[in-house]
Amino acid sequence: MKKANKKTNAAIIIIGNEILSGRTRDVNVVSISKWLNGLGVKVEEVRAIPDIEDSIVKTINDVRKKFKYIFTTGGIGPTHDDITSKSIAKAFKLTYGYHREAYEILEKYYGREKFNEGRKKMAMLPNNATLIYNPSSTAPGFIVENVYCLPGVPSILKSMLGELNNKIDGGKKILSETINLRTIESEIALPLEKVQNKFSDTEIGSYPFFKQGKIGVSIVIRSTEKNLINKCSNEIKSFVKKKKIKIVEKK
Amino acid sequence: MKKANKKTNAAIIIIGNEILSGRTRDVNVVSISKWLNGLGVKVEEVRAIPDIEDSIVKTINDVRKKFKYIFTTGGIGPTHDDITSKSIAKAFKLTYGYHREAYEILEKYYGREKFNEGRKKMAMLPNNATLIYNPSSTAPGFIVENVYCLPGVPSILKSMLGELNNKIDGGKKILSETINLRTIESEIALPLEKVQNKFSDTEIGSYPFFKQGKIGVSIVIRSTEKNLINKCSNEIKSFVKKKKIKIVEKK
Repeated sequence: MKKANKKTNAAIIIIGNEILSGRTRDVNVVSISKWLNGLGVKVEEVRAIPDIEDSIVKTINDVRKKFKYIFTTGGIGPTHDDITSKSIAKAFKLTYGYHREAYEILEKYYGREKFNEGRKKMAMLPNNATLIYNPSSTAPGFIVENVYCLPGVPSILKSMLGELNNKIDGGKKILSETINLRTIESEIALPLEKVQNKFSDTEIGSYPFFKQGKIGVSIVIRSTEKNLINKCSNEIKSFVKKKKIKIVEKK
Repeated sequence: MKKANKKTNAAIIIIGNEILSGRTRDVNVVSISKWLNGLGVKVEEVRAIPDIEDSIVKTINDVRKKFKYIFTTGGIGPTHDDITSKSIAKAFKLTYGYHREAYEILEKYYGREKFNEGRKKMAMLPNNATLIYNPSSTAPGFIVENVYCLPGVPSILKSMLGELNNKIDGGKKILSETINLRTIESEIALPLEKVQNKFSDTEIGSYPFFKQGKIGVSIVIRSTEKNLINKCSNEIKSFVKKKKIKIVEKK
């Protein structure tokens, strides 16, 4: 993994027992990945881990060396199970305590009287962390080196991504084209493999779907180069035509 | 992690570029985790990784030593991007080739004439793998040691879990109780932490929710012991009553 840091890749770490227990279905990976596609950053791994300090510290210290950007979700609220800030401090061997700017932002928002212990906990961050402002519910996220810590509540997380656009040094935007076919995978496996072998720098995925009682296959072509996607797409459409397979809309 | 193998824990490995790119939202983790809760097996990590042989081999060889059970999803279909079987063979240093039973099942299902190259690929498995039968679309999953490989299509995956019940040596069923409160997290953080400290073997999670324009907090108590959950629940209800916080239905 020596050269990994030079790539514009990322990993997402979901921190939360509620995902592992099956209680909550994660929706944040889709938001973060789609946003990063637009900035030319490819998500290459996702992990969901429990609210256990040791797991967070070990996971962060493992992945932060392998990927250019790490995004964490969850665990930055006021309750006892919110231990992301403390664990990130430990991973980076930084002091954990009141962050002046975060404290001021939260105190101003709640008013001095209502700024209780629970709320004050949200101002406790790793020393010198850079804040990620939160336009929807004030409590900030934060950045330490290449680790970006975001909340778990999907609407709040989404509202905070825009502010990060100019903090991400991405590559060329990742483009994609989808071709939906009225067929089954085994009918197209061989010719599709030939196209993939010819265009080895392009990512071609094949995904069966079931829609309104009808089956089909979505072919997804991904690349940063529009002309490569077009060439690939044309070759696929050509064998599809020969095989008399129908291209369909999936909406 | 020496003792980890003795615990009845599990990890789920999602194999598929479509999850990482944000194109597809995973739903299989919820199915597998809820099913495992009932068998007394706790999911302690989830990873999503790309359709790259090296990533699959490394990830499997990392996690299979740390957790009692590994469940993989995706990558066992007929197309070029389905490389789970081959990669699992490589991870365990097993031969990869036609699996007699799988071949016979598929040949019988499709009929000799329609059993084309794409379909035959689904009979290629690691040597001596144990099959997981597939009641909905025939193509089997498989087991190698503690690694259970399932398909990515959610409805097919779900149809295959039942058959595995008697293959999982679980622990006591993991139970849970949810208390939904009309409050905000910072109002209950301190008393909730006290309850957690008192019942350190019980997992208490706090999750803000937004429902029909109203905010609230769900407190989730998890344990294998019903009486511990009851005690914990009573203590929470007691401080909630003192604070005049309303308990609400969330349906």
